[in-house]
Amino acid sequence: MDNLTNKTWRPLRPGGSKIMKKIKTGKLIGVSLGPGDPGLITRQAWELLSQDHFWTYPVRARKSDSYALSIVLRAGLQLPEKSSALVFPMTHDLEKLAKHWLIAAETVLPILQSGQDVLFLVEGDASTYSTFGHLAKTVVGLDDSIHVETIAGVSSFNAAAARLDTPLAEVDETMAILPAGYGIPTIDKLLDDFDTLVLLKVKPILDDILDLLEQRDLLAHTQFIEKAGTEEERIVKDVASLRGETVNYLSLMLVKNVRRVRGEIKRGCRKKPDEMAEATN
Amino acid sequence: MDNLTNKTWRPLRPGGSKIMKKIKTGKLIGVSLGPGDPGLITRQAWELLSQDHFWTYPVRARKSDSYALSIVLRAGLQLPEKSSALVFPMTHDLEKLAKHWLIAAETVLPILQSGQDVLFLVEGDASTYSTFGHLAKTVVGLDDSIHVETIAGVSSFNAAAARLDTPLAEVDETMAILPAGYGIPTIDKLLDDFDTLVLLKVKPILDDILDLLEQRDLLAHTQFIEKAGTEEERIVKDVASLRGETVNYLSLMLVKNVRRVRGEIKRGCRKKPDEMAEATN
Repeated sequence: MDNLTNKTWRPLRPGGSKIMKKIKTGKLIGVSLGPGDPGLITRQAWELLSQDHFWTYPVRARKSDSYALSIVLRAGLQLPEKSSALVFPMTHDLEKLAKHWLIAAETVLPILQSGQDVLFLVEGDASTYSTFGHLAKTVVGLDDSIHVETIAGVSSFNAAAARLDTPLAEVDETMAILPAGYGIPTIDKLLDDFDTLVLLKVKPILDDILDLLEQRDLLAHTQFIEKAGTEEERIVKDVASLRGETVNYLSLMLVKNVRRVRGEIKRGCRKKPDEMAEATN
Repeated sequence: MDNLTNKTWRPLRPGGSKIMKKIKTGKLIGVSLGPGDPGLITRQAWELLSQDHFWTYPVRARKSDSYALSIVLRAGLQLPEKSSALVFPMTHDLEKLAKHWLIAAETVLPILQSGQDVLFLVEGDASTYSTFGHLAKTVVGLDDSIHVETIAGVSSFNAAAARLDTPLAEVDETMAILPAGYGIPTIDKLLDDFDTLVLLKVKPILDDILDLLEQRDLLAHTQFIEKAGTEEERIVKDVASLRGETVNYLSLMLVKNVRRVRGEIKRGCRKKPDEMAEATN
């Protein structure tokens, strides 16, 4: 990395000041774009996208389209010349992933070190199931003088709840968000503690989930949504009809556990500090 | 409320069309504004706010300021003449709350019935710990021809994670959001199943939470943030220093459960459908 690091030090030309000036490095900015509807881009993200910054955006493979970029293009903005796709393959192979995080980081680092801010376009929210955290960590690992900034955005489950007109959580309610792949016993157990479950990546165990919801008498309180807020959005209120279907990867299930019983001790915990101390001791 | 109701009904003037036309009712739109930074208002919310709609906004009491409204005013917009504060008192008394939901619904209903769209300004996300769901349900209960629309927004925990540069969830991770008042045994139990806990309303049991985190050796992986993204934002990384302090109501704790062990069966559930069926049967 030494050659890269050296690039950031640009000695003043002969004839200039004799004092070595350090170039201010650029910021790596994770720009959340919301889950797909260009209207859900925040004003702050929009402002950054409208300025003269270097854009980066994730693709699955060198020739793939970028979903994050497509949101911005549908919003009417143009891809600037100063831009680069970063490849993050769809794999759980940590070694392979780390290799690509490093390649991506090495792509953006010299740009940052030259003093330019780099935007990384993120679908949904940059803190929620996003590659941005890995990219940022790897960049800072290479050069800890780089500043990272995250612009928060609308996450897919917030958009899904809005489209379904179903609150994620109301006063005192609890909610959990998890990949459904943790399995039926886990989902079953969590229903005891949560008023709302957001199940992601339901595809591989969809029928098993439907069985559980039927046992729990929660089918009528569960909704399914694919690509929330996009033109291809699909809402299924009769989730039992999904049985046997191969659903899209970008789908989720919103389970409202209307029958949840909150125990006495738990209620006690929401009282005054003194009573709570007793209840929890 | 009767005088308000009467104002909105504008009968067709004599001499007008003899056919009674049913006025198309307006839409009740929950406009999420994000947690406080005007930059986190979405473009769609901004567009609605810039159009000629009737604004409503929540206040705790008749003479109180509205935090939701303050976000919009700080963004540079002006309160239109066509606007009304709606009182939602800070109480857990369900009867009292229901009474105020009804008063609020009766305030907006005639406006909707006159054909005007009504915006309800919401801090954070309208689906997440917001009064909007109650208002919408009560309005539709009074007149089921009213259409409700929710504009999703950035929730406080997404903004908090961004400000803390800490991911809420990465690949395969699980996250839970809950009022801390459910008590230490609940929080302790949930740590086994969650990589991230967002604890809301930590104020009343803050010291007990710190004890638990110390036992679990998670103090170094916990951060505290008050009024994320606002001018009064306060970030505390050394959460142990909060012991004995009375913290703000609008604060949360982000606990990264870095030591969580994910069991074998759970991992099995993330494999191919056939293997999963075996693992969960």
